[in-house]
Amino acid sequence: MFLQGNRPSGNAIVTVALTFLTSSQAILIVWSKRAGKYEYSVTTANFLVETLKCALSLAALARIWKSEGVTEDNRLSTTLDEVIVYPIPALLYLVKNLLQYYIFAYVDAPGYQILKNLNIISTGVLYSIILKKKLSDIQWAAFILLCAGCTTAQLNSRSDHVLQTSLPGWIMAIVMALLSGFAGVYTEAIIKKRPSRNINVQNFWLYISGMAFNAIAILIQDFDAVMNKGFFHGYSIITTLMILNHALSGIAVSMVMKYADNIVKVYSTSVAMLLTAVVSVFLFGFNLTLAFFLGATVVSVSVYLHSAGKLQR
Amino acid sequence: MFLQGNRPSGNAIVTVALTFLTSSQAILIVWSKRAGKYEYSVTTANFLVETLKCALSLAALARIWKSEGVTEDNRLSTTLDEVIVYPIPALLYLVKNLLQYYIFAYVDAPGYQILKNLNIISTGVLYSIILKKKLSDIQWAAFILLCAGCTTAQLNSRSDHVLQTSLPGWIMAIVMALLSGFAGVYTEAIIKKRPSRNINVQNFWLYISGMAFNAIAILIQDFDAVMNKGFFHGYSIITTLMILNHALSGIAVSMVMKYADNIVKVYSTSVAMLLTAVVSVFLFGFNLTLAFFLGATVVSVSVYLHSAGKLQR
Repeated sequence: MFLQGNRPSGNAIVTVALTFLTSSQAILIVWSKRAGKYEYSVTTANFLVETLKCALSLAALARIWKSEGVTEDNRLSTTLDEVIVYPIPALLYLVKNLLQYYIFAYVDAPGYQILKNLNIISTGVLYSIILKKKLSDIQWAAFILLCAGCTTAQLNSRSDHVLQTSLPGWIMAIVMALLSGFAGVYTEAIIKKRPSRNINVQNFWLYISGMAFNAIAILIQDFDAVMNKGFFHGYSIITTLMILNHALSGIAVSMVMKYADNIVKVYSTSVAMLLTAVVSVFLFGFNLTLAFFLGATVVSVSVYLHSAGKLQR
Repeated sequence: MFLQGNRPSGNAIVTVALTFLTSSQAILIVWSKRAGKYEYSVTTANFLVETLKCALSLAALARIWKSEGVTEDNRLSTTLDEVIVYPIPALLYLVKNLLQYYIFAYVDAPGYQILKNLNIISTGVLYSIILKKKLSDIQWAAFILLCAGCTTAQLNSRSDHVLQTSLPGWIMAIVMALLSGFAGVYTEAIIKKRPSRNINVQNFWLYISGMAFNAIAILIQDFDAVMNKGFFHGYSIITTLMILNHALSGIAVSMVMKYADNIVKVYSTSVAMLLTAVVSVFLFGFNLTLAFFLGATVVSVSVYLHSAGKLQR
């Protein structure tokens, strides 16, 4: 049902699904680190995620073909004109993931978590420029607050180090934010260009490109490790759960792009970050900081202002 | 001129004056602590502030009587009906200041600075209840952001202690916030009740009450010290500058109450807090933290939303 949700009411369902999947994703990552199992190669896992998404899209399509028959909108075969743009987001993500290995020469891991919030601003700016959708002034204010609030919620005693980031570090962080924002906005543009086209077909072509570029990433980064230790070295039950979760979140992101937009995606992943922290209190005995409460307050007000800003236009 | 500003254009002038005076106040406090001169009794200084404000109001009135003659609106003599309410704010501040000595049994000084931001919320709530002035939804959101932003800007490595405050500590902090908010809102109500009455006459009666209650505070808290060491023990040039500054800020607050309102007062003292931090970087070599930048961003957006919320009503 989830993969066939073509009605606008699917909007709310996919948003909630994305929020839920994103928070459980973060919790699985913490769990896998706690269990000391983090030795699998990330590129092979990413490849399997793309493969699983492809398989799920095909399975959904098979059901649709059975019940509705093959139509112009749900047939898999396509034109070069339609399919030529699909590899672009996958290429952008590949470049971003490769850069990620180099940015750690300039910032530490907590600093990188802080800088990743630049994604929020870059997504907003590119969304309004490329998709030519206007945000109201109140909504822009809400977007700045979302970025400030998420960053505040993640503050810890070592966060101030990020202010000492050198210029090349800042440039890389901004380039990565722009790549990630552009990939998201471009995916939305591709998917929305043909509104009547079945989302599972669009996903299939997106994920086939993802498989191809992740195969390249394996060759670049982990060829030796895979050759020596094998493709599935270090895999555990948690790894499998993470791959399943990533695949489902990936499909949820596509659904949000089709039936909502990148702004909804940014809000639901931000709210997911807060939910994760609260759930971690119960699961892992984490403590919530004053900074977290303040950040969560600012994010909540931002969510309110985003919708209030819409109504008053 | 400053003390005679009866025109509405005085609104902006007194707001800027209050912001400027509040920031220089905080800087003088840091300066006086650095110079190691903080041995004077605070109650005698408060008494002198009230006396100086009284003298300045009388001086301004004398000039007005000379140029305009004595009228119904600027004569000093008054009715019991008018004057009976003037001691109330002074009494509230006295109770709040006395409580301040006891709250430190429950929270440390940095924690108290954090909890003082509850004043922002209490002022907003009491302002709309007692003065029956409506804030728009956007303005309420802006007010919550102002409180969260100011607190964020003041975060430091020890701020999380405030979350461990016991219930009596929280209750005292809330009672103090309510007393302070109520005193501010009540002062505005008194001053605005007679719009044509000269502000210097209104100030004179406010400050006479302040003198009386601060005399009581000297008797309660510092009677022995004043008797043994003298009234002016520990006074320095910085102390004198601080008293002068407090007197001028006090008059600026009255002006803001007459020509603007408590909301403007809260915003200008909050912006003053941020200005102080920036100026302290240059004066004392302080470092700005990431939390400060995030808090300052949230406060700036709050200021914008407060005025945007007004326009859209």
